[in-house]
Amino acid sequence: MTVQEQAQKARTAALTLSSATRATKDAALLAMADALAKSETAILEANARDVARAEANGTSAALIDRLRLTPDRIAGMVEGLRELAALPDPVGDVVRGWTNANGVQVRQVRVPFGVVGIIYEARPNVTADAGGICLKSGNAALLRGSSSAAQSNAAVVDALQTGLVDAGLPAEAIQLVPGPREVTNELMAARGLVDVLIPRGGAGLIDNVVRNSQVPVIETGVGNCHVFVDAAADEQMALDILINAKTQRPSVCNAAETLLVHADIADSFVPKALQALSAHGVTVHGDSRVAAYGEVVPAEEKDFAEEYLSLDLAAAVVDSLDSALQHIRRYSTGHTETIVTESQTSAARFTAEVDAAAVLVNASGRFVDGGEFGFGAEIGISTQKLHARGPMGLPEMTSTKYVVTGSGQIRQ
Amino acid sequence: MTVQEQAQKARTAALTLSSATRATKDAALLAMADALAKSETAILEANARDVARAEANGTSAALIDRLRLTPDRIAGMVEGLRELAALPDPVGDVVRGWTNANGVQVRQVRVPFGVVGIIYEARPNVTADAGGICLKSGNAALLRGSSSAAQSNAAVVDALQTGLVDAGLPAEAIQLVPGPREVTNELMAARGLVDVLIPRGGAGLIDNVVRNSQVPVIETGVGNCHVFVDAAADEQMALDILINAKTQRPSVCNAAETLLVHADIADSFVPKALQALSAHGVTVHGDSRVAAYGEVVPAEEKDFAEEYLSLDLAAAVVDSLDSALQHIRRYSTGHTETIVTESQTSAARFTAEVDAAAVLVNASGRFVDGGEFGFGAEIGISTQKLHARGPMGLPEMTSTKYVVTGSGQIRQ
Repeated sequence: MTVQEQAQKARTAALTLSSATRATKDAALLAMADALAKSETAILEANARDVARAEANGTSAALIDRLRLTPDRIAGMVEGLRELAALPDPVGDVVRGWTNANGVQVRQVRVPFGVVGIIYEARPNVTADAGGICLKSGNAALLRGSSSAAQSNAAVVDALQTGLVDAGLPAEAIQLVPGPREVTNELMAARGLVDVLIPRGGAGLIDNVVRNSQVPVIETGVGNCHVFVDAAADEQMALDILINAKTQRPSVCNAAETLLVHADIADSFVPKALQALSAHGVTVHGDSRVAAYGEVVPAEEKDFAEEYLSLDLAAAVVDSLDSALQHIRRYSTGHTETIVTESQTSAARFTAEVDAAAVLVNASGRFVDGGEFGFGAEIGISTQKLHARGPMGLPEMTSTKYVVTGSGQIRQ
Repeated sequence: MTVQEQAQKARTAALTLSSATRATKDAALLAMADALAKSETAILEANARDVARAEANGTSAALIDRLRLTPDRIAGMVEGLRELAALPDPVGDVVRGWTNANGVQVRQVRVPFGVVGIIYEARPNVTADAGGICLKSGNAALLRGSSSAAQSNAAVVDALQTGLVDAGLPAEAIQLVPGPREVTNELMAARGLVDVLIPRGGAGLIDNVVRNSQVPVIETGVGNCHVFVDAAADEQMALDILINAKTQRPSVCNAAETLLVHADIADSFVPKALQALSAHGVTVHGDSRVAAYGEVVPAEEKDFAEEYLSLDLAAAVVDSLDSALQHIRRYSTGHTETIVTESQTSAARFTAEVDAAAVLVNASGRFVDGGEFGFGAEIGISTQKLHARGPMGLPEMTSTKYVVTGSGQIRQ
């Protein structure tokens, strides 16, 4: 089956989904969870084949860890689908409404996008998460996973489709899009058949989709996130936030990647920071002014543009809030930016002038997350300015439609 | 100056605009209005040169009418800027906010996009409207008008920049982007410098931008709009709505282009409709079932896909609501779709199943308009599903940012 044919089937399924009630969708999510649990053995076997092939190809241990499924990870996928069933349905929400002077009633109502394509990398658990989020928000899903996880993904989608059919919904509501690399190009060209594409993965994948897609894209997640310690910072608070933002989970997009310290507090703060970072196993790539306070790897220009996703941190001393803002303007990917300060003026300027999905004052950037925001499910963190910016929950997976009702009114 | 250089200057101006208060922006809008009024003679002279060149090139009378400025049209532009000053400022609006269990406060706040590029055709009054709307919403504007209006647009932008500078804002907040066709390609490639592109004009222009831009696009306005007269319609109401939707202003995107009539009411309704349409000067392109009731131009397949924007109307008889929905699914551009019916069931199915920016029951599609919706200013009607769908007011010209404030909280 070609991508076009798959997308056409998805459109037909989307029509059914768009008027499916919450009760039907939730029943399907629970049936999908049950089917997934029942398929544990088949999924683990398929995954073992993917892992064996990856090992034979000399894939890195880190990548194989992301590819590997365990009974625990499958239980997590099952639980995720059950939690989705418990969340409110965004479809049908009236965003706003009014009555015109002539009696015409206008309501802006949430509706599904239609067909959503998700392009993602190794982790096969994304298959269940993304399929479930699309279903709950009334969208048909075309899931383009990586070829390294092909068998695992196929086994997961088999189970999801069993659940869909058990609940009376079309199996084509969640489809895997297999095949060679060119298939991704076909998805990006399927304007009119696919409504939205969401790439999830590394910077290269996201950049390729954003630049080449003719289908509208929601860009997610590259995060070169800064922590700026202002002259007026509480030093202990700054240390706590820095260590948490860098080390609590270094591999995720809202983790800190660069520390900027105001020159007026550097003498006191930088030595403490270097000690604490070292104690937490962090390698500091410091500029010459940071190097004056202790041993660091000398930072090159490119360190300040890097999303390490590891226990590495670029660090620089800046002369002023203005210099910090300038540095962030130059290197930020617009994800999550943090200031630690007791100064209202500094906090106000930082939150106003930094152009990012989330700007934090005196709190760890690790809070910028759908779960922490109470969204219950998250498809990713958008770093674009159109449609959704920041953590995306179920409402962000919908569009709206104006429903206008009258009793024969015409325009004068 | 290259497009890149212009965009860079616009980014710098955007930074100033992003923290400009409403008072400053409104003062600038009023100063722009004053400067525009004072420049009437210069603008009319520049416009006369554009018109003379267009006439020498054999441009059609309709296009020359759109190109031509008059004292009345300039007064309209001036008035438009003054009205913008009176509208509320969307920037700074708190869309939603909450406090997490750990005391971290989250607010989602409206912020400007940054730099907005508008690509548009002949009408030079769009220059003032678009410049004003961008300024009020805190965005720097790169205005790419058509070369046929080059001198008029330059004269208008001169006046707008005088107003900006009078109010202490940077002139580069509103720039015209002159030059050959390739300039449009440079705008579409200026990812990272331009935040959003909005094409306004014919289907060809919009399609080119949507397919080729690497900058995120908001697609506006092609409308192949249907009126479906259901079996249970009030016939007089259906006639009133049909005539209004087709003839009140045929050249705009929310005007009706196709009439679909349920077979059960066709014997009674179609003859009346043909008579009323003929009396209003409308040429009906009817299928064979419509032709059975009177003289029509035989409709070809392509008539049902056509956005006439003239006193032409495609017409067909359909066997059922399902056939009507199917026809609309096939030919609709997702703009404005109308059903006339007294049946709750038909109305509910139509509003649920038709996939369009606006779906109307028993009211003229001509109401789908920023002015009629009470938005006060409109940059266009979005027919895409991301970000904004339907008439776009000032809030739709903004993005959001999460501002997160704590007192040292870290993630466990």
